[in-house]
Amino acid sequence: MNFICSKQKLQEGISIVTKAITGKTTMPILEGIYIEANDEGLTLIGSDMDVSIETKVEATVTTAGKIVLDARLFGEIIRKLPNSDVKIEIADNDLIQVTCEKSVFNLVYMNPSDYPMLPTINEDLKVEVPQNLLKNMIKGTSFAIAQDEVRPILQGILFEVKDKQLNLVALDGYRLAIRNELLDIDNDIEVVIPGKTLNEVSKILEDNSDLVEITFTSNHILFNLKTTKVISRLLEGKFVNYNSLLPQEHKLIVNVKKQELQNGIERASLMAKDGNSNLIKLDVQEDILIITSNSQLGKVREEVAISLQGEGVQIAFNSRYLLDVLKSMEEDEIVMEMTSGITPCVIKGKNMNNSKYLVLPVRLVR
Amino acid sequence: MNFICSKQKLQEGISIVTKAITGKTTMPILEGIYIEANDEGLTLIGSDMDVSIETKVEATVTTAGKIVLDARLFGEIIRKLPNSDVKIEIADNDLIQVTCEKSVFNLVYMNPSDYPMLPTINEDLKVEVPQNLLKNMIKGTSFAIAQDEVRPILQGILFEVKDKQLNLVALDGYRLAIRNELLDIDNDIEVVIPGKTLNEVSKILEDNSDLVEITFTSNHILFNLKTTKVISRLLEGKFVNYNSLLPQEHKLIVNVKKQELQNGIERASLMAKDGNSNLIKLDVQEDILIITSNSQLGKVREEVAISLQGEGVQIAFNSRYLLDVLKSMEEDEIVMEMTSGITPCVIKGKNMNNSKYLVLPVRLVR
Repeated sequence: MNFICSKQKLQEGISIVTKAITGKTTMPILEGIYIEANDEGLTLIGSDMDVSIETKVEATVTTAGKIVLDARLFGEIIRKLPNSDVKIEIADNDLIQVTCEKSVFNLVYMNPSDYPMLPTINEDLKVEVPQNLLKNMIKGTSFAIAQDEVRPILQGILFEVKDKQLNLVALDGYRLAIRNELLDIDNDIEVVIPGKTLNEVSKILEDNSDLVEITFTSNHILFNLKTTKVISRLLEGKFVNYNSLLPQEHKLIVNVKKQELQNGIERASLMAKDGNSNLIKLDVQEDILIITSNSQLGKVREEVAISLQGEGVQIAFNSRYLLDVLKSMEEDEIVMEMTSGITPCVIKGKNMNNSKYLVLPVRLVR
Repeated sequence: MNFICSKQKLQEGISIVTKAITGKTTMPILEGIYIEANDEGLTLIGSDMDVSIETKVEATVTTAGKIVLDARLFGEIIRKLPNSDVKIEIADNDLIQVTCEKSVFNLVYMNPSDYPMLPTINEDLKVEVPQNLLKNMIKGTSFAIAQDEVRPILQGILFEVKDKQLNLVALDGYRLAIRNELLDIDNDIEVVIPGKTLNEVSKILEDNSDLVEITFTSNHILFNLKTTKVISRLLEGKFVNYNSLLPQEHKLIVNVKKQELQNGIERASLMAKDGNSNLIKLDVQEDILIITSNSQLGKVREEVAISLQGEGVQIAFNSRYLLDVLKSMEEDEIVMEMTSGITPCVIKGKNMNNSKYLVLPVRLVR
């Protein structure tokens, strides 16, 4: 193997594939980056078996070849090199030599034939989604993924296409997040993608409307961007029937400015930390919502201006669940639909219809 | 107690005094901020007994008084309040009430009479130093303070005034850092200030030439800035006679660009991490300095252009000690004075005479 490429581009490529290298596997070779050089340039791969990322890097290749290099060390070396051309070639004694200006590194490498094959994806069930739209949808749902492993399916996000609408859904038993967008897709799809895959994908997605092509097999999903591919296994099993969790009706509607509500809850939750499960109480009145909380250190009362349709209610929440929802919402004005102090609260944007959140209240012991 | 002050100014004051609240004491009251309100506004104090910081905050005081409030909670509350006036007053039930726009907090407070008195500083041995100059001198020496507690005196920085020159000196057995400046000071002074005090002082010092007034007693030092005072105990005992550690002569001088040397050492040290004590070798030749290092992962060779007076030498270092020195130096061109591979290396700026560093080599086993 012998090639020359720009330090900058190589660094970018390493940075992308390293996102899949989690160190959570017992296979030492997966701590490495697989590098293949041929006529078309370089292919870099990083993987932890669950998720694999492959990206292309421009390079002038003199001799084709394959190696696997320790990702952390190789990444640090390339990052610290001067901004110039980097030459990489096989040297004597099973070492590769990395040369850049007056720096010469000789590194041991791992055997590329030990590197696991990526799953082959050649089905023709494909959809295309604008990158920025998918990125927003992931951001708007991924916080609600279950953190514990009690129900593995809830560690994923439901990716559902139905009636030309794409729905992303996550829930963890305390809250539910739904984002949807109309898309010109004919097939119906229902798969559950591991949350950590989508978090890595969202870091690679750009903030523009370029399309990302998504291909499905029964076990895997492939996100195809211009020069980068992300392949992930899918979660097995059926997702929760989330529609059945949504209340069919509500008795009151609160209109409120998102940022004011968020600020009030953030301050109130300062008093709700000490062994207090982040408990805050909301007293919904005609024109105001009063947030209170107390602990052995003192108490707090916050007032937020609202407009209410329906009768007032008293309801308590884990402030973190409400804050997660508010922080992930893009609209300035939001709507909360409630029925009583013991039934779920639905939160939506006031003007847009592409997000819906549900948060369970905390039942207070009288 | 009853006063009104701006959220912004109160937050700044809390941020300053909190630097002295380290939580490393067993007295719960020292987790609090002492607040005294009187005709002149507010006085805030934070302390861990070793270091105390006192600052003034403008306020409209209706009723004078004193309280002590939990620093972490009070700090977070003030930080999260809207940018407006904050009213603080004693409420019922041993609570203070903090009101800002529509937020009302009631907090328990601690008894101010339990708060330890600050030491009285009324000696008249005073010096004045421009803030930016002192800040630079601290930055240029504090990295060399001993981290272990084997010789407590080395956890401090020597603050020495002699022949109208101020010297700051720190050393830890492997390296020595000296910064000096000519100052119009008549008295001779020799005290050792705890390193952590100076680190906190340097955070408060501003980047301008306003003077900071420094007062000494036999046990304490007081830094007097415009609205803030820092009082610290001094370390007991005599500092090392650092002049005796400096070599009287040298056999070779290396002139080198600081950043090029630093970059080369940083890259070389990437191969010197794994159980290798950061060992790098320097081969000083006529026009170049070659840095090498190796580990089980591979090896590296870096070339740095130099100009050499004298014969070449081979010498090995702990790369961290060299990097600490280079990072703390302000000059672009530096000079290294050496005699052999087993004698100390002195590093200075090429054009300025206000800093001098010494690093011990690592003796290689043949």
